[in-house]
Amino acid sequence: MINKLIENIKKTNAPIVVGLDPMLSYVPEQVVKQAFAELGETLEGVAEAVWQFNKEIIDKTYDLIPAVKPQIAMYEQFGIPGLEAFKKTVDYCKEKGLVVIGDIKRGDIGSTSAAYAAGHLGRVQAGSKSFVPFGEDFVTVNPYMGSDCVKPFIDVCKQEKKGLFILVKTSNPSSGEFQDRLVDGRPLYELVGEKVQEWGDACMGGEYSYIGAVVGATYPEQGKQLRKLMPKAYILVPGYGAQGGKGKDLAHFFNEDGLGAIVNSSRGIIAAYKQEKYGKYGPENFGEASRAAVEDMIADIRGVL
Amino acid sequence: MINKLIENIKKTNAPIVVGLDPMLSYVPEQVVKQAFAELGETLEGVAEAVWQFNKEIIDKTYDLIPAVKPQIAMYEQFGIPGLEAFKKTVDYCKEKGLVVIGDIKRGDIGSTSAAYAAGHLGRVQAGSKSFVPFGEDFVTVNPYMGSDCVKPFIDVCKQEKKGLFILVKTSNPSSGEFQDRLVDGRPLYELVGEKVQEWGDACMGGEYSYIGAVVGATYPEQGKQLRKLMPKAYILVPGYGAQGGKGKDLAHFFNEDGLGAIVNSSRGIIAAYKQEKYGKYGPENFGEASRAAVEDMIADIRGVL
Repeated sequence: MINKLIENIKKTNAPIVVGLDPMLSYVPEQVVKQAFAELGETLEGVAEAVWQFNKEIIDKTYDLIPAVKPQIAMYEQFGIPGLEAFKKTVDYCKEKGLVVIGDIKRGDIGSTSAAYAAGHLGRVQAGSKSFVPFGEDFVTVNPYMGSDCVKPFIDVCKQEKKGLFILVKTSNPSSGEFQDRLVDGRPLYELVGEKVQEWGDACMGGEYSYIGAVVGATYPEQGKQLRKLMPKAYILVPGYGAQGGKGKDLAHFFNEDGLGAIVNSSRGIIAAYKQEKYGKYGPENFGEASRAAVEDMIADIRGVL
Repeated sequence: MINKLIENIKKTNAPIVVGLDPMLSYVPEQVVKQAFAELGETLEGVAEAVWQFNKEIIDKTYDLIPAVKPQIAMYEQFGIPGLEAFKKTVDYCKEKGLVVIGDIKRGDIGSTSAAYAAGHLGRVQAGSKSFVPFGEDFVTVNPYMGSDCVKPFIDVCKQEKKGLFILVKTSNPSSGEFQDRLVDGRPLYELVGEKVQEWGDACMGGEYSYIGAVVGATYPEQGKQLRKLMPKAYILVPGYGAQGGKGKDLAHFFNEDGLGAIVNSSRGIIAAYKQEKYGKYGPENFGEASRAAVEDMIADIRGVL
């Protein structure tokens, strides 16, 4: 799957990923109204609004981008109907040829991580039949519990040709509270980065490993350092745009081949129509606004490479 | 909710929690057959088997225990139908007066943690109506991303009178890989424990805080140390039984008032009928076997206090 991701990136010449993290407040009123008219003011109604919103954005941007990153929390908050909208979104993006990174940040003791891995990246058995419960291509994993929390995910990736992005240095303001603490004079995130490199070494797709890392755009210096530490890991870079990361901060997340990183923007793309810059589109053409925002983001990042 | 948990513990004189983590291999053949006869070899069929299995165990044990801890991964692996079984399980346990600890180990940047918190502990709006998507009483949280990942959960706990158990020192073999690394001469888990104490100080139910910690039974020395560091935090102790933790290891997780900790057993209770010790019940009476295992666990732990 890392090879397909790289192929998609080369084809689009766009190392970006659109974060499908639909807060209900991003969904234009006409979309919500229509969904409530059909399904009432219910969780089903909200989930339908979210799904219709996603579908329009995917339809208007899929030819420009290599991948999407739905944030499962934004669906899970609406219970079962929300998770149905997540699944529909994953399936639809795959139909469109996009690589789907499930931003699930799971991680637990061995047998439990194995269950998450089967559910999100693999298959489960029901008697003699096998099913693909969620079917993402990559997922994000939280490493706090150590190797035996990560390994079951790696095992499923090997079998199913999928991939991981492991949290190393996250984009949020308080990420340093534990991640930056010095262990033998080196920040914890470096130790995690070393482990990612070690795990990834045994999991090469072609030029790159299918065990990648998450490093926030908001920490460019750390990104530079981690790039060197994990030369073969793909880096998923959140925090661009709305969280404060800028194009010029991103250069060092990439390798000299122009590959090795993929930059996520969520709000900046999916709620573009709310920005003054794209205001001319209006809420009725929110998909067109997202397309324009994708084009601008691609231009910004190409300018850096 | 911490007060209700303590009340339930006093009423049953049993500081234990039953982990409802149903691997399909734990579910007796007759239960699976019945579910497949009704719903086919499908995810719906598997989910029905899991739900019927849980229901029987709850029916046979609820009067002996204060709380349950469903592990969401074991449901999520079966996709949407699995998560429906999770929700049914949560609802049924609450009807029976049990406190429900959702073992979800979530955690993300602020707005995303807020979505998880709303979905699992709080409410969400759909137009003018509000809904409780999953409705657990407590959830487990992964702190790797720092304070701004934890705070949105705390906010919802305050509003809704719910609670948290934050991962401090987990029960798995490789938990030390990052958690034990020394920061200024002290292991990382101590720093996390200090944070739990700090967050919890502002969140007192009565004698105890509703911000608790997860510390594995497999690390009794660390438990002793963390007990002192977080005197007002309830400690959720996984790893008893099947993972290797024994009753005698548990004394120091408790305070002198006999409170302050709640010990989880999953496989040891729900798959008791597979153990030689409870073999006489047979798979047809798996609920009775679980009841006997609960009684033995309670006796073991009472012997320590």
